[in-house]
Amino acid sequence: MTGDRPAHGAIADLGERALIQRIQDRAGAPPAWIDIGIGDDAAVFTPARNQRVVLTTDSQVEDVHFRRTWDLRAVGYKALAVNLSDLAAMGATPRASLLSLVLPVDVPVSTVDAVVDGFLELAAARAPLVGGNIARSPGPLVIDVTAIGDIHPRRIMRRSGGRPGDLLYVSGALGAARAGLEMRERGTAVADLSPDERACLDRFDRPVERSRLGRLAALSRSVTACMDLSDGLADAVRQIATASGTGAAVSGDAIPIAPGAAAWQQRVGGDPLLAAIAGGEDYELLFAVAPRRRRAFLGACHRVADVPVTAIGELTKGGRFELILAGLPHAWPDGFTQF
Amino acid sequence: MTGDRPAHGAIADLGERALIQRIQDRAGAPPAWIDIGIGDDAAVFTPARNQRVVLTTDSQVEDVHFRRTWDLRAVGYKALAVNLSDLAAMGATPRASLLSLVLPVDVPVSTVDAVVDGFLELAAARAPLVGGNIARSPGPLVIDVTAIGDIHPRRIMRRSGGRPGDLLYVSGALGAARAGLEMRERGTAVADLSPDERACLDRFDRPVERSRLGRLAALSRSVTACMDLSDGLADAVRQIATASGTGAAVSGDAIPIAPGAAAWQQRVGGDPLLAAIAGGEDYELLFAVAPRRRRAFLGACHRVADVPVTAIGELTKGGRFELILAGLPHAWPDGFTQF
Repeated sequence: MTGDRPAHGAIADLGERALIQRIQDRAGAPPAWIDIGIGDDAAVFTPARNQRVVLTTDSQVEDVHFRRTWDLRAVGYKALAVNLSDLAAMGATPRASLLSLVLPVDVPVSTVDAVVDGFLELAAARAPLVGGNIARSPGPLVIDVTAIGDIHPRRIMRRSGGRPGDLLYVSGALGAARAGLEMRERGTAVADLSPDERACLDRFDRPVERSRLGRLAALSRSVTACMDLSDGLADAVRQIATASGTGAAVSGDAIPIAPGAAAWQQRVGGDPLLAAIAGGEDYELLFAVAPRRRRAFLGACHRVADVPVTAIGELTKGGRFELILAGLPHAWPDGFTQF
Repeated sequence: MTGDRPAHGAIADLGERALIQRIQDRAGAPPAWIDIGIGDDAAVFTPARNQRVVLTTDSQVEDVHFRRTWDLRAVGYKALAVNLSDLAAMGATPRASLLSLVLPVDVPVSTVDAVVDGFLELAAARAPLVGGNIARSPGPLVIDVTAIGDIHPRRIMRRSGGRPGDLLYVSGALGAARAGLEMRERGTAVADLSPDERACLDRFDRPVERSRLGRLAALSRSVTACMDLSDGLADAVRQIATASGTGAAVSGDAIPIAPGAAAWQQRVGGDPLLAAIAGGEDYELLFAVAPRRRRAFLGACHRVADVPVTAIGELTKGGRFELILAGLPHAWPDGFTQF
């Protein structure tokens, strides 16, 4: 079994086929709804009866999203988690994943093992790995993931269904991932961090995608629009409102800030609220909810015991975006963009 | 409409959102089976009734699979074509595609336009673009594509169903893509090439994926195993035989060589047969066919008028691989591998 080979040496010594076999051995046997997994020209799966198929893709690029000196198991985990977050935002149930690796030739086998093991840790529990690709990179390590889910057509949560007067709710607490990234980039020693601050590092490393919350919210038929906070709350509010043809008013005082994120921003002289609103990668969910269905929505959300949802504002008529602080409207902060 | 903006300047000036809008404008409206296309957290599609979902992914990496000085429209086209080839090898009907771009910041918008236009040229006809991702690259341009198809469960062609005595057939003629790559890498002037040789360049640039042939062959229920020739015939024969637990005997004299490939190899002092067997990227299909179903297979193939299929050997008992030339067995040539 090639999977038992030691992890010394670069992947160039192992060879492409042995590398694929190594991943296949680690992935183990797929569940019943996977007809064909790793090892053929393509994978085949059976969606649940009368369900639609949901597809999303996202990549993690070395020196853009992560550095090779980081915990690469966490990087592999996150590469899948951010995709599952997109499925959660539609209300879909994850079913399968594809992993496309672009690898520098000099990368050690142990590096690939770490990425794959982190990926599989989440995949085995949520979205079994059914196929992928390996290519050579003359530059950075790139991890490109596709996640596939299914959903009943009447349960789909789009971005565009919001109406003026709909309430905006956000899950969890914000700013943790941004604080975690800043700690990592500054090379702050973990020993210097409070437990709350350390939780931000964990959150940046291993986003807690909200699959169950998204699914239950979709089932409650109270959500008119939904999106995940990959590029921050400011961006998500703008995207949902724009897609829905509305504006939005958000109360800054209502926004839930992660305790560790607030502590960290105070320590480094940042603005905790602004960092929580503009910072990306929290992977919480933003919902627009019809006011008359608010109880059904909250009832569904409360079934996910450890994830609070907080009302932060509403969609409004016209195209204006207002951040209200101590009763006064402020300029809308911008979210993260790639370029 | 951002799609009407001029293509001058780098993508950094345009911004991520405008770039996505630009692609969406170019992609146009999706067909009826796409419930949600570009622009939401994930795409949603409806598979045909009682069909399984088929998934594959493959990437094209700058300076590994292509150079930025090449015709990037062709590179975009090929990035999808190689994925459709994998679907064809299963017998599946293409339904949708995802395009994940990893782009250097200094890349001109016109470069992205060329890649996207080439991709959409094929996608519009075969597998509509329903979503994707854009990330920044600190190194090469990477084009990662996922293709999604559907298929009736009884029609699926695996690699592993071959039995000793099954006949091996290959579609088309081989060696053209390898010759085309050699012409490109040597910078041979097109004016110096014969029309047959020029056809090799075209074939390397725009592989003719065998979707229709694969689908008709699968419908004929005569194929016991199938694979596409992404890494060459030698590799495909070995993969099908290994997955099926057989050996293989292939007659070198029977292998169809593209006329331009033969002419090119003679010109540069290469071995036309070896180049045709070991050279990758022809994207023809290799079939194992039960002898008693040979007529049904050939009848199905002949419905694709312009693509011949040629019997080149058979699967054998035991694990040996033989290339027979003038009646004598020779060592099995190796295919292309990434590392």
